[in-house]
Amino acid sequence: MDIQQLVSELKEKRGGRIIMMVADGLGGLPLSPGGPTELEAAKTPNLDRLASRGVCGLMTPIKPGITPGSGPGHLGLFGYDPLKYVIGRGVLEATGIGFAVGPKDVAIRCNFCTLDAEGRITDRRAGRIPSEESAAVVSLLKAIRIPGVEVFVEPVKEHRFVVVFRGEGLGANVADTDPQVVGVPPLDPKPLDEESKRTAEIAKQFVTEARKILANQPKANGLTMRGFSKRPDLPTYAEAYGLKAAAIAVYPMYKGLASLVGMDLLGSPTTLDEEITTLEQAWRETDYDFFFVHFKYTDSRGEDGDFDAKVKMIEQFDAVMPRVEALRPDVLIVTGDHSTPAKLKSHSWHPVPTLLVADTCRPDGAKEFSERACLYGGLGHFEAVNLMPLALAHAGRLAKFGA
Amino acid sequence: MDIQQLVSELKEKRGGRIIMMVADGLGGLPLSPGGPTELEAAKTPNLDRLASRGVCGLMTPIKPGITPGSGPGHLGLFGYDPLKYVIGRGVLEATGIGFAVGPKDVAIRCNFCTLDAEGRITDRRAGRIPSEESAAVVSLLKAIRIPGVEVFVEPVKEHRFVVVFRGEGLGANVADTDPQVVGVPPLDPKPLDEESKRTAEIAKQFVTEARKILANQPKANGLTMRGFSKRPDLPTYAEAYGLKAAAIAVYPMYKGLASLVGMDLLGSPTTLDEEITTLEQAWRETDYDFFFVHFKYTDSRGEDGDFDAKVKMIEQFDAVMPRVEALRPDVLIVTGDHSTPAKLKSHSWHPVPTLLVADTCRPDGAKEFSERACLYGGLGHFEAVNLMPLALAHAGRLAKFGA
Repeated sequence: MDIQQLVSELKEKRGGRIIMMVADGLGGLPLSPGGPTELEAAKTPNLDRLASRGVCGLMTPIKPGITPGSGPGHLGLFGYDPLKYVIGRGVLEATGIGFAVGPKDVAIRCNFCTLDAEGRITDRRAGRIPSEESAAVVSLLKAIRIPGVEVFVEPVKEHRFVVVFRGEGLGANVADTDPQVVGVPPLDPKPLDEESKRTAEIAKQFVTEARKILANQPKANGLTMRGFSKRPDLPTYAEAYGLKAAAIAVYPMYKGLASLVGMDLLGSPTTLDEEITTLEQAWRETDYDFFFVHFKYTDSRGEDGDFDAKVKMIEQFDAVMPRVEALRPDVLIVTGDHSTPAKLKSHSWHPVPTLLVADTCRPDGAKEFSERACLYGGLGHFEAVNLMPLALAHAGRLAKFGA
Repeated sequence: MDIQQLVSELKEKRGGRIIMMVADGLGGLPLSPGGPTELEAAKTPNLDRLASRGVCGLMTPIKPGITPGSGPGHLGLFGYDPLKYVIGRGVLEATGIGFAVGPKDVAIRCNFCTLDAEGRITDRRAGRIPSEESAAVVSLLKAIRIPGVEVFVEPVKEHRFVVVFRGEGLGANVADTDPQVVGVPPLDPKPLDEESKRTAEIAKQFVTEARKILANQPKANGLTMRGFSKRPDLPTYAEAYGLKAAAIAVYPMYKGLASLVGMDLLGSPTTLDEEITTLEQAWRETDYDFFFVHFKYTDSRGEDGDFDAKVKMIEQFDAVMPRVEALRPDVLIVTGDHSTPAKLKSHSWHPVPTLLVADTCRPDGAKEFSERACLYGGLGHFEAVNLMPLALAHAGRLAKFGA
């Protein structure tokens, strides 16, 4: 028996309500030795008060040293072992544009490329054609029909787009067709197991039809395919935890990740303020047990390398906390899916400051919400997959294991 | 190779002697924010002195958020992965009354119930008949004989009793017969796999015979069966650790759990004072390498929700420490099998303050034995299964791994 099975067996149908506030890329680094991190530089009176009431700790998203993308980062937060459940590149890309990948789908991340008269690649990204131009070309590809499967083609950004084949018995074990070099033609889609032979055939037909349609395009006259994948067979929040769960997010990627674990998507907020308004309304008017609220801009400003701007985003995040507290959730969690230190301008492996507030917390000495205070917090140093069982325990939603 | 195999391969035949003092349900919570836990409120000069000498930490019994019953709690303390070795309800109940469950036994937890003239359940607990009355009815059932197996019937408490079938080739995968509602008859014992068909047949015969014997009972004229189980195939302390181990406990449950891992039971103490006298005598007169000493009342008073009484029990526990120290064990451990905060009146998932004293400890800053001091202790935050390898190491009983 693994811990996920155990939690599923011990889950109670009733119990407290949980809010998980995720500031994407929350964890940071000092710009210079001895300096504060972004969170430490920010004025966060509300988070500091919550830290005094609750229990703090440092959460490792995957394993020490592993920098997660948004997919594994959120899977871990949601309590699913990111080494067991892998979200393929095609599914992640489709999820990121809000495409609901179903159980019969194979999703593929595609790139437009430029081919010469002999069909050899001269530019693997078709000159990074602008998104609008690319979207127009993608529209042309929507005309492609392949017998026995449904075909979806959706634009992403610049030269990138997504193709989804929907049908029975489609394996996803097909090799990438991007040769990774110029001067040679794209590879043929090659099946890597018996179940994926038909998928490779279908992909080949798709490429043949696409080449005819794209023949006169100046730049985007060819394509490569990679990351053939199916959605992982994730138990839903209802199955895993007995929770009726909802997600509140601005960006499609996070809505998509929440959908993969069976959360319902609430509202169409476009700002943090609107997200909290959506939360307040749903708190009063629905019977959801669990709310995941995603705030994007801490990560964005970290990726920009803009320390001060990330500090401001953290202060914005802090400022909405009184509205969340006012709902009196039985369990309130504040965390991130990974660190994005402005110093590194990228996601990183550093553990994420995390805070859990409930009446059943054993107090630690933390008087503020910061990497330093979390270092000595009562949650200790823990892996993300342990967070959901803790939340369920504090919400009174886990029965005793054994007598 | 897992850690259990590794420890078993590295174990040395000789080395220091270890005493593990377990205060059941030791960990606690403050009654109000900022207040002390039970352990922090208690005056524990002896444990505080030991904390200064040794190394402290916070032990998670199973995994974060999981509240253990006594079975999994002690298995973890004893170094056995509680997710790998599961003790079924029937075996635990039999163990709890001191019945030595053997490898050929299927143990079943039974309830007397009241049936109407049509055989439908009117009371699932037979009016919770008093234990003495129930024991008398159980005695009548001892007359039942079933060809090919030995049958044991033992009273537990009120309407509860235990039935054990002993014989060759008996599977334990049989469904519970309690329909969980009144107004319908008990279910027939139904086998859930091929190996358990015979067990279900035997159970059916037992019920038929029992119904004849119980026909004229006013309340306990029927029975239901649940938790059909066999003892888990646990390596003994000798096999796993090379330790000759003994247990000193007042309550049958803890004696039983210790027996399951091959510990010998010493004396018949009825108080903590008598337990320590038993320990002192065995320390002098026997060559046991390992002593498990169980103190029950910290848990009992926690379950009562009586903070002050639990504090007093911790002080009693503290008061015997000089007698234990005087034996000069090479390794002395003080811990609990789980937390039982008076605030929650139940077992909980909170980590357990833990203390290890040996000449090979690397000192931490702990000056007292408390949840707060353990938070910063040198043992860190660790899972219970890691405690026994640490004890063996400090006792000089584990060889180097690899050259």
